[in-house]
Amino acid sequence: MKMASCRLCGGQAAYSIEHAKMMLCQDCFIKYYEKKIYNTIMKHGMLRGARNVAVAVSGGKDSMALLTAMSKLVPEKFPNIKLVAIHINLGIEGYSEKCQEIVKRVCEGLGVEYVIHDLLSREGYRILDLKSTPLGRRICGACGTVKRYLMNRLAYEIGADRLATGHNLDDIVELLFEFYLKGSVEDLVRVRPVSWSDNPKLVTKIKPLIELTERENTYYAMAQGIPLLDAACPLAEGSRMLRRKKLIGLIEREIPGFKHMFYKSHVKRILPRLEKTVPEPSIMECEKCGMPSLSNTCSYCKLVSRLAAQSAENST
Amino acid sequence: MKMASCRLCGGQAAYSIEHAKMMLCQDCFIKYYEKKIYNTIMKHGMLRGARNVAVAVSGGKDSMALLTAMSKLVPEKFPNIKLVAIHINLGIEGYSEKCQEIVKRVCEGLGVEYVIHDLLSREGYRILDLKSTPLGRRICGACGTVKRYLMNRLAYEIGADRLATGHNLDDIVELLFEFYLKGSVEDLVRVRPVSWSDNPKLVTKIKPLIELTERENTYYAMAQGIPLLDAACPLAEGSRMLRRKKLIGLIEREIPGFKHMFYKSHVKRILPRLEKTVPEPSIMECEKCGMPSLSNTCSYCKLVSRLAAQSAENST
Repeated sequence: MKMASCRLCGGQAAYSIEHAKMMLCQDCFIKYYEKKIYNTIMKHGMLRGARNVAVAVSGGKDSMALLTAMSKLVPEKFPNIKLVAIHINLGIEGYSEKCQEIVKRVCEGLGVEYVIHDLLSREGYRILDLKSTPLGRRICGACGTVKRYLMNRLAYEIGADRLATGHNLDDIVELLFEFYLKGSVEDLVRVRPVSWSDNPKLVTKIKPLIELTERENTYYAMAQGIPLLDAACPLAEGSRMLRRKKLIGLIEREIPGFKHMFYKSHVKRILPRLEKTVPEPSIMECEKCGMPSLSNTCSYCKLVSRLAAQSAENST
Repeated sequence: MKMASCRLCGGQAAYSIEHAKMMLCQDCFIKYYEKKIYNTIMKHGMLRGARNVAVAVSGGKDSMALLTAMSKLVPEKFPNIKLVAIHINLGIEGYSEKCQEIVKRVCEGLGVEYVIHDLLSREGYRILDLKSTPLGRRICGACGTVKRYLMNRLAYEIGADRLATGHNLDDIVELLFEFYLKGSVEDLVRVRPVSWSDNPKLVTKIKPLIELTERENTYYAMAQGIPLLDAACPLAEGSRMLRRKKLIGLIEREIPGFKHMFYKSHVKRILPRLEKTVPEPSIMECEKCGMPSLSNTCSYCKLVSRLAAQSAENST
């Protein structure tokens, strides 16, 4: 049997980029992946004027791959930018310890400064505590609120002017699929590679992996020897999000290139139209925490107050 | 084994309406189906002010079900409206004869006036003749252009103020899927239950079956004893349209209600936004045929001129 050869150098291929019908060897794959991130950053001006970039890392393959690539890219291409990794220990038993361990190991290996925010010791609760509140049935949603809020606050507190997240193409397509299906235009207009903000308390968010698939991130993590988590979040098991991703994998098999096409059509063609019809939301300060909010109380403070109400009820 | 019973009358169920998780007996299904068409017509004001409704019939289950239901509904609910069926014999061997035969039998059975337009004798070609032109590789697309143009012209010639077509929910969702994937906003804004026109040569199009699935139409055709075509169009075999429909069936199995949800989100939420961003196309008269056109020559005349060019080439 003839071995497949690398499209770029002719060496022995190790990775198959299916949507591009391209086989690459390990070295060429690494170059391809890092070039793709660089191109995404440049195309959307993600780092234009940036000085301090916080990278939100969970310990999973996507964010660790992002951090690794950024730690190579930034000194070379953007020497004036400082990189800091930020991690939240969510207190999920049998899972969060492993995540934190990987974050520490990778950051130390790369020589990247990192901040770990421990949910239990700093905020007084763990994600599982949300399970007993009315939010518990949609625990992934509640966890998302916690992470979005705290990641932004942490980035703001360390003076970051960008917050980079590891959202990949599969994540984004899963969201788009959900929002187009529900017709939630207000959510659709927020699915974008960069969410610019001129409010200092709301850090501009960038998604450098938005055009890379889950599989490409796994390849890169493997090629770079990034330790892979040997556990999935036990709370997300069987979640709608995971079922949707499986379905999207199925569609991709029927329509090769589906994910790339759908994402590009959204960003290039439909998003610019929808944007024109949705008024810029007016952002106020949360009366509890002072952070940016769309209503008097921000969704994080609402969530935490439900948690407090629940524990008061339990202790009586 | 206990027989399932009809949700409405408790009798023996014969049909399962899956997206509504409802079993119905034959009589109740017929009432449900006709009520649904009536509701769709009323919701969108499809017959407001109408006097002459042309129903485009192909001989397939959808359009024959539409004609049958309309021939019951119209005299009862809209007694001032006259109904005429219009049919194009496309000249597809082993298929078009069967289609025409069903149209004749059903129209005569219902006592509905009908017009048959024979492509070969009236226009001088058959659909298969398009196969040898550059359009031949996308023959279903070319056939669509022919049908859209001729159906409108026939409806106009007989003085119809509405042209009803048998497009069902599956057809529409397949189109939406395609257009959202490609991001073709100009096409998306034309996917709607009614295409109003105040140009007398462009007859207002209505889709009374737009909220009924292919399966519901098959049930109705069976329940009404409408003869079912025992052949599919041989030219459409393996077409992308059919593969997409299969894929959508697969998605529906994973997300029950997918088709209804996707359609409703489009019509209620996304379409009204997109419309605002797309200027009303300016319609001119085709310099060849005088019918409405978006450019100097309409797409039908362009297609026919390619056909003429091809046969001139062949005869030299």
